Amino acid sequence: MERASIETKDTWNLSLIYKDEQEFYNDLNEAKQLLNQLLLQKEHFLNDIDHFINFHEKYIRMSRYIQKLHCFAHLHCDVEPNDQKYQTMYAAILSFYDQVTSALDFYTVEMIAADTTVENFLKDERLADYRYSIAEILRQKKHVLSQEMETLISKTSSISDISSQVFDAFRLDYDPVHINGEEKFLNSATLSEFLKNPDPNVRQEAYHNFFKEYKKYENVFASTLSGVMKKDAFYADVKKFNSPLEASLFDDNVPTSLFFKILEKANKEYRPLFHRYNALKKKVLNLKTMYNYDLNIPIVEYDTKKYTVDECFDIILDVVKVFGNDYVEIIQKAKDERWIDYYPHAGKRVGAYSSGCYDTNPYILMNFIGDYNSLSTMIHELGHSAHTYLSCHHQSPVNCDYRIFVAEVASTVNETLLINYMLEHASSKEEKAYFLYELLENCVGLIFRQPMYADFEHILHTWAQEGKPMSAQMITDLYMSKNAEYFGPDVTMDQYVSHSCFYIPHFYYNYYVYKYTLGMTVALAIVSRILGGDQKQKEAYLNFLKSGGSKYPVDLLKDALVDPLEDQLYDDAFHYFENILNQFEELI
Amino acid sequence: MERASIETKDTWNLSLIYKDEQEFYNDLNEAKQLLNQLLLQKEHFLNDIDHFINFHEKYIRMSRYIQKLHCFAHLHCDVEPNDQKYQTMYAAILSFYDQVTSALDFYTVEMIAADTTVENFLKDERLADYRYSIAEILRQKKHVLSQEMETLISKTSSISDISSQVFDAFRLDYDPVHINGEEKFLNSATLSEFLKNPDPNVRQEAYHNFFKEYKKYENVFASTLSGVMKKDAFYADVKKFNSPLEASLFDDNVPTSLFFKILEKANKEYRPLFHRYNALKKKVLNLKTMYNYDLNIPIVEYDTKKYTVDECFDIILDVVKVFGNDYVEIIQKAKDERWIDYYPHAGKRVGAYSSGCYDTNPYILMNFIGDYNSLSTMIHELGHSAHTYLSCHHQSPVNCDYRIFVAEVASTVNETLLINYMLEHASSKEEKAYFLYELLENCVGLIFRQPMYADFEHILHTWAQEGKPMSAQMITDLYMSKNAEYFGPDVTMDQYVSHSCFYIPHFYYNYYVYKYTLGMTVALAIVSRILGGDQKQKEAYLNFLKSGGSKYPVDLLKDALVDPLEDQLYDDAFHYFENILNQFEELI
Repeated sequence: MERASIETKDTWNLSLIYKDEQEFYNDLNEAKQLLNQLLLQKEHFLNDIDHFINFHEKYIRMSRYIQKLHCFAHLHCDVEPNDQKYQTMYAAILSFYDQVTSALDFYTVEMIAADTTVENFLKDERLADYRYSIAEILRQKKHVLSQEMETLISKTSSISDISSQVFDAFRLDYDPVHINGEEKFLNSATLSEFLKNPDPNVRQEAYHNFFKEYKKYENVFASTLSGVMKKDAFYADVKKFNSPLEASLFDDNVPTSLFFKILEKANKEYRPLFHRYNALKKKVLNLKTMYNYDLNIPIVEYDTKKYTVDECFDIILDVVKVFGNDYVEIIQKAKDERWIDYYPHAGKRVGAYSSGCYDTNPYILMNFIGDYNSLSTMIHELGHSAHTYLSCHHQSPVNCDYRIFVAEVASTVNETLLINYMLEHASSKEEKAYFLYELLENCVGLIFRQPMYADFEHILHTWAQEGKPMSAQMITDLYMSKNAEYFGPDVTMDQYVSHSCFYIPHFYYNYYVYKYTLGMTVALAIVSRILGGDQKQKEAYLNFLKSGGSKYPVDLLKDALVDPLEDQLYDDAFHYFENILNQFEELI
Repeated sequence: MERASIETKDTWNLSLIYKDEQEFYNDLNEAKQLLNQLLLQKEHFLNDIDHFINFHEKYIRMSRYIQKLHCFAHLHCDVEPNDQKYQTMYAAILSFYDQVTSALDFYTVEMIAADTTVENFLKDERLADYRYSIAEILRQKKHVLSQEMETLISKTSSISDISSQVFDAFRLDYDPVHINGEEKFLNSATLSEFLKNPDPNVRQEAYHNFFKEYKKYENVFASTLSGVMKKDAFYADVKKFNSPLEASLFDDNVPTSLFFKILEKANKEYRPLFHRYNALKKKVLNLKTMYNYDLNIPIVEYDTKKYTVDECFDIILDVVKVFGNDYVEIIQKAKDERWIDYYPHAGKRVGAYSSGCYDTNPYILMNFIGDYNSLSTMIHELGHSAHTYLSCHHQSPVNCDYRIFVAEVASTVNETLLINYMLEHASSKEEKAYFLYELLENCVGLIFRQPMYADFEHILHTWAQEGKPMSAQMITDLYMSKNAEYFGPDVTMDQYVSHSCFYIPHFYYNYYVYKYTLGMTVALAIVSRILGGDQKQKEAYLNFLKSGGSKYPVDLLKDALVDPLEDQLYDDAFHYFENILNQFEELI
């Protein structure tokens, strides 16, 4: 399918950001002028409070331009990668961003050198909005080097991003899959469909045709994946962190013990639960050999509906009305104002995401194919978008950006609410079993699979820190062995499991995946309380969405009545999984 | 063709380097132990002359291991890219090399801080061999920063090499070319054959099928090509050079005026000569529209021989006997000891090179297809190998490595001697015309095309220095316009010319290509004098080959009686081209 054949109403309306190239480049020029004005304030912006306020106001205005420009260019590139007009815009904003990073390297150094002055300034009410974000700057004291060293480090940004750039630019073509002698288009969206096919040949062909491309280019992917690990290790080292993990978690002000607790709970203590689930699958599917790619076959014989986009909205609007009118109106806006780019087509970026900023709508990219997964992805991404929308409408531009650490809560709460809604509206035992199964699958993905990814990623980071070589062989061998342990004795590894690590973009995101697990455990607590009619929890949760990035992430969650440092949170989540598994086992 | 189906005698004998993995890893361990010993001498190796000598001897021993290990791994990887055993070795030696670079960063800093002490040490006769190489260290004084800064810069080596790594790892497959309805395998070696085909459809299909792959992955290649330019600009900047060009030429101790002189001569003053040659081609070929890819059609109707490897050796041995027995024996050794990997096969690295070090033979990779070009490539690479061999047998390990700046002389002298030999042995007017044509083509490649490449590369470097964005569109537009100017009014640009820049590995080599032009102009002078019976020139040339890297490159060339700073050298070369063109025009 080509983009041109998709109806306009089913694409996102990016012209709300910029009508034309001219508007884009006008804003880029505005941003450039602001940068010049900021540079004139080097060594002066701390002179007195007026300089200080003026500097920060300009800084925020420039940041807003950058975010808006970046948003416009990257959204276009992700659906029209061959339109060089957008590639040029994207390169222009990335290059300007590099320039900003490098040119403003004096900021943090001067702030930290004058930290007592800064703390005095902050008492002024005009800076109330800035108190948290500036405290964040000062917290870096131990890791900020001399001006000369910081300048050098900031210059490395022009060379450290190549791995991710190449990974993003490298779009593979896959051989088609044959169903009843007919060739079917294979990409990441259709792959998951094919893996549900009852014909084992279709499943195998789809899996092989997909991942053999990653094997074919394994040396390219090994270079980019090891490259990004080396990059993280490099920055951790030069910024005086003990490890890439510590460096990554420092941003969120979170102790490393939290990361290891999640891995311990999921990969050791509760992993037998996952193996029990796999054994059940094998029994129900009645397979002599159950390959990893067979795990996607629905084990519940229930003919799920196909949903149109409109039907999805009807359901979603019904689900979220528990949050009240304000939330419902946001979802309606997403539809009416065309925030979403729905359908897959040749060249379009795979997967789904929500992306936006203070001066744009929170757009959503999807590869919608009308199954339950598409519905679920839609409510997931709308969770992000609603979070962004509420945050941008209740916080100043300084505090509206929330961190990845808390980002998965809003999306996962929505996904879990949707399944509960489906369970509640189930009209048969089969339908109920089906949605219990969906909930189990969802939990598996977030509370079992992500911690396995996190473990793999952590080992690669450790290798990079130790300067260990990382050939394609080493990486794929490690991934194979981690998967074999993860899936357990009832699942047989296909030869290409080893290379499926090269497909996962999250490994390029520097310890991102464990945050999914956290998001899910937090979401399970919030959902169960809200559905139990806990008004206090509902208010606390909506306030959390409106709080954006105005506090430390752990504090935001504590305010939301879910403390992520408590052991109980994780034990509850896995027991919840066990409980669902028990119900499911009884039902089928 | 698969490697397994090639006879052992036609492959290089790498078992002379290491019999097995065990030997490789033994040497790697030796090198690691030497590194540990060197690290203990930090802050001590300048204590007294004995420490100093001891340190340098160990350093050289470790460097020899590294070169040998690297040679073994990279040669294997280039012909057996899917054998993970060699990829693992390659990753191991690269990683160790990174570690060495970073761990020994104190060396240069301490040497420069103690430069007067060092200069005193050098008076000792035991350090005679080291005088030149240590003077090279001290010359860097202006560009060596504090220990802390140098440590940080050396750590960036782990992240700055990704562009080249990806480019090297990214092997493309090409759709086959159809000749009389039959599918023919297309790769870089066969491409040049197809472009000589009299059928315009074959030429177009070959050109399009080849370069459309580069267009397909243009965003990947734009990332890696702009990445390497940013890397060069980064190092130039942080090491206090005015430009990447100045930084690159500093290594050879060559003024930037030399670079611009070559571009001025080739791209401005003498370019009309090249356009005159293209106009002649168009007339002879009688084409209404002559595309750039049509320039490869032989314009002389002469049925060239096909050569076997043995026949190539017979001719080459006859050509090089002008240098005397020692040189002849080296060529014989190359054959007898299996230095050469001759034939193309699936997965093998494209092109040709000579690669070796003090403790290995100087191996040669080829994609031999038995035409004159293969013969010429063989004598070219044997020129490099003989240079390496003579250098390693007449210099100590400290001084045997010659620089790229002088590397192309030995190869180009051989290539030019071969053509002259062919002209001399021509038995018909047609044959003579054919070899005049070959000589013209050779000159075009080296004295016209490379300076165009150098101009393109210089602009990319300038963009990187200015922080300009570099999208695929910008890079390919630039390359298209440079090619249009270069080829002149009689040549029509095919749509894919723009993307052919992504195929050329030399743009990853930081101002390499202008050195080809220099090598050719120097070679033309040397060849014409030697063929004129100039014994003094012959002796000076052979001494040059034996001198390896024992002096500054410009001084080596002056000793060889060819001063590269003289204007005359270039004028002579282009007049030589004009002379050949006149002869050729008369003949056909």
